Amino acid sequence: MRNHIAGTCNELSSIETHYFTFGNTPGDLLELECGRLFGPITLAYETYGTLNARGSNAILIQHTLTSDAHAAGYHAGDDRPGWWDDMIGPGKAFDTDKYFVICSNVIGGCKGSTGPSSINPGTGIPYGLDFPVITVKDMVEAQKRLIDHLGIEKLLCIAGGSMGGMQALQWVASYPGKARSVIPIAAAWKQSPFQIALAEVGRQAIMKDPNWNNGNYYDGQRPENGLAVARMMGHITYMSELSMEDKFSRKLKNGEYSFSFNVDFEVESYLNYRGNAFVKRFDANSYLYITRALNYFDVSREKLLPFGRAVDTKFLVVSFLSDWLYPSWQSKEIVQFLMSRQQDTTYCEIKSTYGHDAFLLEFEEETRLIKHFLANLNSV
Amino acid sequence: MRNHIAGTCNELSSIETHYFTFGNTPGDLLELECGRLFGPITLAYETYGTLNARGSNAILIQHTLTSDAHAAGYHAGDDRPGWWDDMIGPGKAFDTDKYFVICSNVIGGCKGSTGPSSINPGTGIPYGLDFPVITVKDMVEAQKRLIDHLGIEKLLCIAGGSMGGMQALQWVASYPGKARSVIPIAAAWKQSPFQIALAEVGRQAIMKDPNWNNGNYYDGQRPENGLAVARMMGHITYMSELSMEDKFSRKLKNGEYSFSFNVDFEVESYLNYRGNAFVKRFDANSYLYITRALNYFDVSREKLLPFGRAVDTKFLVVSFLSDWLYPSWQSKEIVQFLMSRQQDTTYCEIKSTYGHDAFLLEFEEETRLIKHFLANLNSV
Repeated sequence: MRNHIAGTCNELSSIETHYFTFGNTPGDLLELECGRLFGPITLAYETYGTLNARGSNAILIQHTLTSDAHAAGYHAGDDRPGWWDDMIGPGKAFDTDKYFVICSNVIGGCKGSTGPSSINPGTGIPYGLDFPVITVKDMVEAQKRLIDHLGIEKLLCIAGGSMGGMQALQWVASYPGKARSVIPIAAAWKQSPFQIALAEVGRQAIMKDPNWNNGNYYDGQRPENGLAVARMMGHITYMSELSMEDKFSRKLKNGEYSFSFNVDFEVESYLNYRGNAFVKRFDANSYLYITRALNYFDVSREKLLPFGRAVDTKFLVVSFLSDWLYPSWQSKEIVQFLMSRQQDTTYCEIKSTYGHDAFLLEFEEETRLIKHFLANLNSV
Repeated sequence: MRNHIAGTCNELSSIETHYFTFGNTPGDLLELECGRLFGPITLAYETYGTLNARGSNAILIQHTLTSDAHAAGYHAGDDRPGWWDDMIGPGKAFDTDKYFVICSNVIGGCKGSTGPSSINPGTGIPYGLDFPVITVKDMVEAQKRLIDHLGIEKLLCIAGGSMGGMQALQWVASYPGKARSVIPIAAAWKQSPFQIALAEVGRQAIMKDPNWNNGNYYDGQRPENGLAVARMMGHITYMSELSMEDKFSRKLKNGEYSFSFNVDFEVESYLNYRGNAFVKRFDANSYLYITRALNYFDVSREKLLPFGRAVDTKFLVVSFLSDWLYPSWQSKEIVQFLMSRQQDTTYCEIKSTYGHDAFLLEFEEETRLIKHFLANLNSV
């Protein structure tokens, strides 16, 4: 699907991650939903393109559960671009020749922003479970500080898939009218019991791993077994029955059954590989914190758009036909509510066999939709 | 759903489990698909009703992944009946006033039949991983010995849900014409990569548990953490999005978020309860062996009914609308093949919101279908 070569074709090259820290003084702390005042907080972020003089071309891109601030372009020396590079860059859907694109790693994460693996300045060791349980609202509050710091009064657009879509909706709930447009993709306005259940199994896999040690594992062995199992299960939910059939069917790695519990089927091999690769790049505690934030997420009904609050925000809601983790009916719930409030709303269900992963793979269809949608916003 | 009281209303009471052992001599060993000759093998089984003089009223009921031979009635002193008591008994779908019903625990299981937790007579300790990797074909071969032992020439019906349905199909593949009728419910003629993937995650949860100890845990701590996680994941796949919504929605156990990783949502509480209860009644190695047998299961196309083999078997294939673990398209594959071979086949998709569990819960609808179907068989 990707045919980019670093440094050619107007690619974004030599991208650097920046860091913004706030909450160093008592008056500057972040008040979290749990009631705790918390700081200092560092957010890792990247920007692509240039903010115009009026500050009216800023687009905020939100990332998923296990992703990061590196959404597009190449870091010096890297041969792989950011996670949504198909969508962000010169001439792309989020066209960096026109727009100033920002992506920041969430609070609670492990990709440069303050999270449970960060050093607690009060103790000199990583927070572990002393890190406060954060919510999607808290993620947005921290991000709001960054947006203020960047001097942006009003965003042209907030867009993201999966957890990114939920952050986008939380922005509407927390700061109605702060964005000219919002694009939640493969998202929901509240997690369903099905989604909560899947997250809880992943957490139990981690917390039952003896190496988890109540979250204190940073100076010893990490709960890699539990995290790998959580990730394997996650991967199943990101695909679809059909995409697994297309990709693996019942193909055997060595042509015949081993009559053992070794890896026989290609689909087993794939999942084990993905699980083992994941534990090298992600922190188990961050997995707990971020899935918990998602479970707590609920901006349904009046919470999304307090009655009587007129906003001039345009919405583009996108879902995918084969996505059973964030199925279309959840997007339709958002759409029905927005339309009942006379909000300017467009909805599209993209036909895809890729399941939840479609949001990262169906970039051609997404580009067609989003490019037009952004071009039609009259405030740029 | 159940309104039975032990000992009343023509219930089957004082049911006992019987044991049949074979393979005590070299010539009597079972030749397994892996090539190994194996024995002795004990099968736990129960029977309900009476075999008629012609031996023509025997019905074989097949159980699921984690179930057992106790399909109906009450063991002395028990206040809960067998797992399919809604369907088996006087006047019920499998009417024990008319039929002689048999249910046996599979080889590889842990409910009285020989499995990895059984004592290896060669060593005096449990087999553990020295137990051979068995297949659904092996399960049926062992069961065939039992049926021969009971003196049954031809079965009136073989019926079962989920893995039970796959055993029923394996009977057709291994012994075409051996049954007058076959009822595979919520089953498939081969496991899909999606089903293999789910099983592999469960196995990895168990095998990554340090207490698993390569299968040698019977004299120490058992891999309860891993098995509980596997079961929690399993439970999600047995329900449907809608049944979880109906049963739990986002209801909280204590009315508010705890801002911790404790159990907050009722759905979390349910899954943890189920996972922890399961480890007390099931052996982790049996979970590995039986899921592996399911992964290996494939009687698609010519394997199900070798071309040119005319059989006078009637088929009733049943699936459930909200079952996403064994979705209807898998049942339809079986039906299409059978009909292309001019087999007498009836198919019904039952409307249900219970997901895969529907097979145990929608007994009224199943009773209507099966009672008629059995009554119309002209050989009784």
